[in-house]
Amino acid sequence: MSTAEALAELTRLVQRAHTLGTVGGLLGWDEQVNLPPGAAEQRAAQQAVMAEVMHAAAADSRVGELLARLESPGAGLDADGVAIVRQARRDYDQATRLPADFVRAKAEQESRAFHAWAAAREARDFAGFAPVLARNVDFARREAAFLNPAAPTYDVLLDKYDPGLTAAAVERLFGELRRDLVPLMRAIVASPRAARARELAAGLRGFPVEAQGRFLREVTSRLGFDYRRGRLDVSLHPFCSGTGDDVRLTTRYREDQPLSALLGSVHEAGHGMYEQGLPAAHLGTALGLNAGMAVHESQSRLWENQVARGPGFWWHFGPRWRELFPAQTAALSADDLALVVAPVAPTLIRVEADEVTYNLHIVLRFELERRLFGGDLAVADLPEAWRALSVELLGLAPAHAGEGVLQDVHWGAGLFGYFPSYCLGNMIAAQLWSRVRVVRPGIEEDFARGDFGWLLGWLREHIHAAGRRHSALELVRAVTGEELSPRHLVDYLRARYGSLYLGGSSC
Amino acid sequence: MSTAEALAELTRLVQRAHTLGTVGGLLGWDEQVNLPPGAAEQRAAQQAVMAEVMHAAAADSRVGELLARLESPGAGLDADGVAIVRQARRDYDQATRLPADFVRAKAEQESRAFHAWAAAREARDFAGFAPVLARNVDFARREAAFLNPAAPTYDVLLDKYDPGLTAAAVERLFGELRRDLVPLMRAIVASPRAARARELAAGLRGFPVEAQGRFLREVTSRLGFDYRRGRLDVSLHPFCSGTGDDVRLTTRYREDQPLSALLGSVHEAGHGMYEQGLPAAHLGTALGLNAGMAVHESQSRLWENQVARGPGFWWHFGPRWRELFPAQTAALSADDLALVVAPVAPTLIRVEADEVTYNLHIVLRFELERRLFGGDLAVADLPEAWRALSVELLGLAPAHAGEGVLQDVHWGAGLFGYFPSYCLGNMIAAQLWSRVRVVRPGIEEDFARGDFGWLLGWLREHIHAAGRRHSALELVRAVTGEELSPRHLVDYLRARYGSLYLGGSSC
Repeated sequence: MSTAEALAELTRLVQRAHTLGTVGGLLGWDEQVNLPPGAAEQRAAQQAVMAEVMHAAAADSRVGELLARLESPGAGLDADGVAIVRQARRDYDQATRLPADFVRAKAEQESRAFHAWAAAREARDFAGFAPVLARNVDFARREAAFLNPAAPTYDVLLDKYDPGLTAAAVERLFGELRRDLVPLMRAIVASPRAARARELAAGLRGFPVEAQGRFLREVTSRLGFDYRRGRLDVSLHPFCSGTGDDVRLTTRYREDQPLSALLGSVHEAGHGMYEQGLPAAHLGTALGLNAGMAVHESQSRLWENQVARGPGFWWHFGPRWRELFPAQTAALSADDLALVVAPVAPTLIRVEADEVTYNLHIVLRFELERRLFGGDLAVADLPEAWRALSVELLGLAPAHAGEGVLQDVHWGAGLFGYFPSYCLGNMIAAQLWSRVRVVRPGIEEDFARGDFGWLLGWLREHIHAAGRRHSALELVRAVTGEELSPRHLVDYLRARYGSLYLGGSSC
Repeated sequence: MSTAEALAELTRLVQRAHTLGTVGGLLGWDEQVNLPPGAAEQRAAQQAVMAEVMHAAAADSRVGELLARLESPGAGLDADGVAIVRQARRDYDQATRLPADFVRAKAEQESRAFHAWAAAREARDFAGFAPVLARNVDFARREAAFLNPAAPTYDVLLDKYDPGLTAAAVERLFGELRRDLVPLMRAIVASPRAARARELAAGLRGFPVEAQGRFLREVTSRLGFDYRRGRLDVSLHPFCSGTGDDVRLTTRYREDQPLSALLGSVHEAGHGMYEQGLPAAHLGTALGLNAGMAVHESQSRLWENQVARGPGFWWHFGPRWRELFPAQTAALSADDLALVVAPVAPTLIRVEADEVTYNLHIVLRFELERRLFGGDLAVADLPEAWRALSVELLGLAPAHAGEGVLQDVHWGAGLFGYFPSYCLGNMIAAQLWSRVRVVRPGIEEDFARGDFGWLLGWLREHIHAAGRRHSALELVRAVTGEELSPRHLVDYLRARYGSLYLGGSSC
């Protein structure tokens, strides 16, 4: 068997496993968008059988044989072949290193833990949830030991979502970010315009859902989300699902928060345009997969924040927005609108956070995860550690666990090492944006004309077309010419929010 | 291994394969309801991989070992065990008798043929389609030979949809039906009230889609379709999909044909209530599967025709219908409404046929299929044979193949032996209805009070709870105390349509 033949067969098997994964993904989308309330158990049974089938495809011993053949010194692979084999090896090892019994037990534990978390959050009862969370932590430790017994636990967990990422690297980046962000946030919050922004936001009322839906479809289409290869539905929690020619966004509407559905949809459309932009012929291999959670988040954040909170975007879409909601927006001046689309108002709840303080929520969670898996923080001590960090970073103390350690689903669902990608995504977005401003100084004028195609084309060429050939850090280096740094995020936030709230003075 | 252990393991494997089948079913539903237009190829790839996985589960050699163990004389199975094993044997043999190459080649041919059919129908070009259809016929013959080389081809094809059904049995039933139905139809069509009914139907105009949707949801809920375990969406062609706790109906709306969506939805809800009524713990085994196509169709037709075209139903729902559409229904007297909900107007197109002539469309197709697979009709001669039978049965000759042999998707999609179940379903519905009228003489008064629960309870007990323990013919015998006969359908049509159109005289 020639190298080309072996690579072709490996590609076929990898793509087959990926296709089964997309079927599981569709079941998940359908569960959140369409599932009749009485069908949860039936859907769980479908997901369980699909998980078995997907695992069998991923752990197919034929994949192992082909990998051994292609990894041999004489195989003579080109760069694409090397990337395909490296990713296939990673997936195959992940599938084969975890014993089937462990995978099943972990899935059962996480399903139970999810429901226990939902009940505990409702009851604001951390003590009752603590033993369940401790079991989740234990399962995560054991999983890390199976996957890579030689590496520190938390590094293995980070690596699941962003290959190659280490706690030390994140700690350095987040430390620098935190140092600059906390004073910026404090200065803004103390400014008179921050009070004005809160007042304006509270005054938004009665934006009919149907017109909101029409507007955000117009916007996301114009930005470049292709509705011939995707759709938009309503779900309790917004998300993006699918890849290639079938990418599905969801949103939710609130009549008194018209920017929530809009910016949320632009965010999901950012994820969606990334998935639609991956090389179609290579879906499922390293040439056609996304580059991990942090890069994914950079694509959503760039469109949501750098683009859709900026002047060019609103220069173009503002008149249409006012046309759809004439009475609701009559009292809003252009200056008011700039504040409304870029508020700064620290809150205890991450998913309600503004663009500036959001990052501090992630710093907090990373810090706690690192200590939890480093061994110097016990599960029982989480609420107190949370409270202390929350006061330190946000200036706010949770009144109960529902505002603190129980607020997010992640730990309840067994997801550890996932949070950092949110903030890394913000850093990457800002660093890409900084590069964009260099190569396309007139980008805001593009937007003001309603032309978002240049930006999408640039992202297609530099990010989407690369697939998963590189890690997040390598990709950032290749595209921007420098190592990932929080400097660009801080500079961007200082520029946008400093000029909005602090009269242009840098803080 | 004890019999109980072997049966439990068989049940687990059978239910696992069935669950994979329901995932494939959801992909199919999603394709017709949600799929972005550009995603057809990606969906086809998902379906192809799922077909492989489903086939592997159905042909699992462990199933064969367990069957051999359970079919041995000393196994000592109870009646339920016997039913489970018999059905599992049938499914296992079907999965293992067809070579994988043949299955793949047949699926490819049918996919190509479907598209060729759609183009040919559009172009009204039978000659161009004939070679494709001939290949479909050839594949059907070869499939039958794989499945059961000892039986006549067309019997094997019928057996796929209704186990145990033979061409001879269908021929006897259809012959008797045809003898009585043709004169009844002719008498009705010649009556003055038939002209009045056509005039009234043509006068229906402007029923807003939203109010139609509200009405048919109210109706189907009240009949007993459980929306906690199901949903209703819009698709190009109405259908029912899913089973157990996740049953999905679709409909389509036409503003000038308000009864089309209503009766169509009641029809699909009839299918849906059947699937919702199957024993939940046994989904996938003979104890929890539907009893085949004919019985399935009897459940949809009974609700659509015997119930929703009858006096009690409209006594109850008529006022609400008029309330939702006051202007549109103002000129319609109660007598008018009775005609409008039960029209008789022969047409060349099966899917537009009324309740009386519908059956003759099926008789025609059965006659042609029987001759096609019996060897005394060539594909090339189908249009002429169709024309002759159409004139004989319906009194109408197609002007082109689009009104004749090309009108239905079935043959283009490789479905032969499927049509008869539509008419057998009508016969079974009428025979069940006849039994219902004996045990519950006041059933129309139940309906007039808005109480459809007795009927649903009776169907649950006698049809739904039985699962697939019996063949259609056995089930009809067990429930009604007599062999399946067209007599009840003819009597029912004579009673309802005779009194409506012929002043109560029996014809």
